[in-house]
Amino acid sequence: MIYLDNAATTYPKPKQVYQSVMDAMTKYGANPGRGSHAMAIEGARVIYETRELLCQLFNLEDPMRVIFTFNATDGLNMAIKGILRQGDHVVTTSMEHNSVLRPISELEKYGVEHTIVQCAPDGTVNVNDIENAIKSNTRLVVTTHVSNLTGTIFPIEKIGEMCRRRSVLYLVDGSQSAGVMEIDMQRQKIDLLAVPGHKGLLGPQGTGALLINTDAEIRQLKEGGTGSESSSMYQPNFYPDKLEAGTHNLPGIAGLNASLKYILNKGTKSILKHEKSILELFINEMKKNPKIKIYGPEDIDLRCGVVPVNIEGKDSSEVAYILDTEYNIAVRPGLHCAPLAHKTIGTDKIGAVRFGVGPFTTKADVMAAVKALNEISEKKEN
Amino acid sequence: MIYLDNAATTYPKPKQVYQSVMDAMTKYGANPGRGSHAMAIEGARVIYETRELLCQLFNLEDPMRVIFTFNATDGLNMAIKGILRQGDHVVTTSMEHNSVLRPISELEKYGVEHTIVQCAPDGTVNVNDIENAIKSNTRLVVTTHVSNLTGTIFPIEKIGEMCRRRSVLYLVDGSQSAGVMEIDMQRQKIDLLAVPGHKGLLGPQGTGALLINTDAEIRQLKEGGTGSESSSMYQPNFYPDKLEAGTHNLPGIAGLNASLKYILNKGTKSILKHEKSILELFINEMKKNPKIKIYGPEDIDLRCGVVPVNIEGKDSSEVAYILDTEYNIAVRPGLHCAPLAHKTIGTDKIGAVRFGVGPFTTKADVMAAVKALNEISEKKEN
Repeated sequence: MIYLDNAATTYPKPKQVYQSVMDAMTKYGANPGRGSHAMAIEGARVIYETRELLCQLFNLEDPMRVIFTFNATDGLNMAIKGILRQGDHVVTTSMEHNSVLRPISELEKYGVEHTIVQCAPDGTVNVNDIENAIKSNTRLVVTTHVSNLTGTIFPIEKIGEMCRRRSVLYLVDGSQSAGVMEIDMQRQKIDLLAVPGHKGLLGPQGTGALLINTDAEIRQLKEGGTGSESSSMYQPNFYPDKLEAGTHNLPGIAGLNASLKYILNKGTKSILKHEKSILELFINEMKKNPKIKIYGPEDIDLRCGVVPVNIEGKDSSEVAYILDTEYNIAVRPGLHCAPLAHKTIGTDKIGAVRFGVGPFTTKADVMAAVKALNEISEKKEN
Repeated sequence: MIYLDNAATTYPKPKQVYQSVMDAMTKYGANPGRGSHAMAIEGARVIYETRELLCQLFNLEDPMRVIFTFNATDGLNMAIKGILRQGDHVVTTSMEHNSVLRPISELEKYGVEHTIVQCAPDGTVNVNDIENAIKSNTRLVVTTHVSNLTGTIFPIEKIGEMCRRRSVLYLVDGSQSAGVMEIDMQRQKIDLLAVPGHKGLLGPQGTGALLINTDAEIRQLKEGGTGSESSSMYQPNFYPDKLEAGTHNLPGIAGLNASLKYILNKGTKSILKHEKSILELFINEMKKNPKIKIYGPEDIDLRCGVVPVNIEGKDSSEVAYILDTEYNIAVRPGLHCAPLAHKTIGTDKIGAVRFGVGPFTTKADVMAAVKALNEISEKKEN
């Protein structure tokens, strides 16, 4: 199968990821932080090292402020609901994923207001529009780094600077950028960063992290065993334990450990360069066919990872189905859990076929996709 | 290493678990429910089948009411916080884990009262005491099935019947029993069951489930992408999507799929019989040494899985340290995230050394532990 659904999860992973997951299960499959014997200690060591690797990749100082989560959604909920209180106001954009839009919509019931800044039809955002939405009770700005629909890159450094200047916290959803684009929490003034482990970070599903670069209080959503302050009936009030209740996904974190080493060794610049060249080729080839409508920024420097398209007169689900069954090409049609983003680009009624490239995508892969799209565009309707 | 820390997580797992995790990562490592191509569909199939296997093991009718969670703590928080509202009262016991005690303590801040029923020094609970604690505003009773400290078996069927009669919901923490003891949600009248995937169910860490056998509304703690009703800014109001936001731990669930098949094929009766015979041998051998204090019920039929001990005049952490470093035996000392349980059995000041057996524990393993304990008990204090 030609896998072009890398925006949903990357596939394959570097080989050492599989081996690391296996080692965690077979060689030291104990419960880290819940025992003091050799196997448990080895698990705890791998977890701590993975915190350090995430700090290194995203330029955060304190490994104890790396919170392991179930997925990016988990980290986004943790940050949004942990920070916002009744009477607060939050600003976000029309390009966000449901993992941001839905928690924020839910919080309305609890007296938290929100403003959704409208982006341009190519998915780009105007930082002034975000700043203009800030009110006296605005506590948080949440934006994605890269749109999961159009691949539009957000100017997170400018947004971060503006937020710092306006004394508003800034939460970045790194779901589509972490591991590919540079993210520097200090330089870009990011207070909170939520990332999935299984997309650009090339780790297994069931992993993610919230990185905390602020002293603002984050209330926990869950309490439970932490292996610390066990005699207390209350959750410990220090990181990471405050936000990490229950047993960790040790095999998953061990896989993430290996993939982070792979990324740090290769460098995100080199990964980005590869993905960009593939994406550029793909877009340029598709542009030759006037029946293919391509969404997102014209300028390749403003986009990363994904490109959504539609074929004139064809339903996106039908196109994806033909790609799968006749060409063995995996993509994702529909709304991509980003309803307002589709509205922004004008595809909320029809959806789009999303192609996502990864570090292992080849020119041959996207050329096969171009050939398939060209053939499908020539097909008569049944 | 002789692994006797199975109450924290079972080790090893059946071989097919490792293979199944690997297959999920290497053969169909896509994002289930987020795409419609062949790989995503295979992932979705494995996840659905795993819901069915959990239904089969615990006698729940509807696979759509199996919610996959990060761990048991996640499921317990989901149930406790999803059900209880301001003004409600909840009853639990002194033998509970912090994953029950801490969420309930936290809810006090939000106007939810609780009563903690005191258990006997061997960890047994009197069902009448639970019933007597029920008030007009009691909405939920939460108890463990088997204590993670003493291995005391709770009469969940009797508690379930009483709760049904009193129109109170019953949530069972199956952390130490699932996969070993019989759990029948219909017969035992269990409304909600939270289980970890990585203990008696023999799956990987990073998995767990909440099984729902009630029509009572459970509010979600998180919102996000579900791959369903994507055009809505609100979480879907049907199971499992309502309570499952974001990408699943597919490799973990695939591993759990294999371990559930292993358990269903072997039968919990046979697993329980094996563990019981090992535990009985272990306890009987330890009883020969008057310097070893054994906690929990005298009657072997009232206990399962674990046994906590102390050696006269020795610190539990020191004993565990010697077992690890000199005998290569893994156990867990300290408070086991169950402070009131330790108070109940009288070890809150000193802790205890907990031994936990699993389906792969042998008589030779526990005999080696007995020999080690006997030798340590003879050692003079430094």
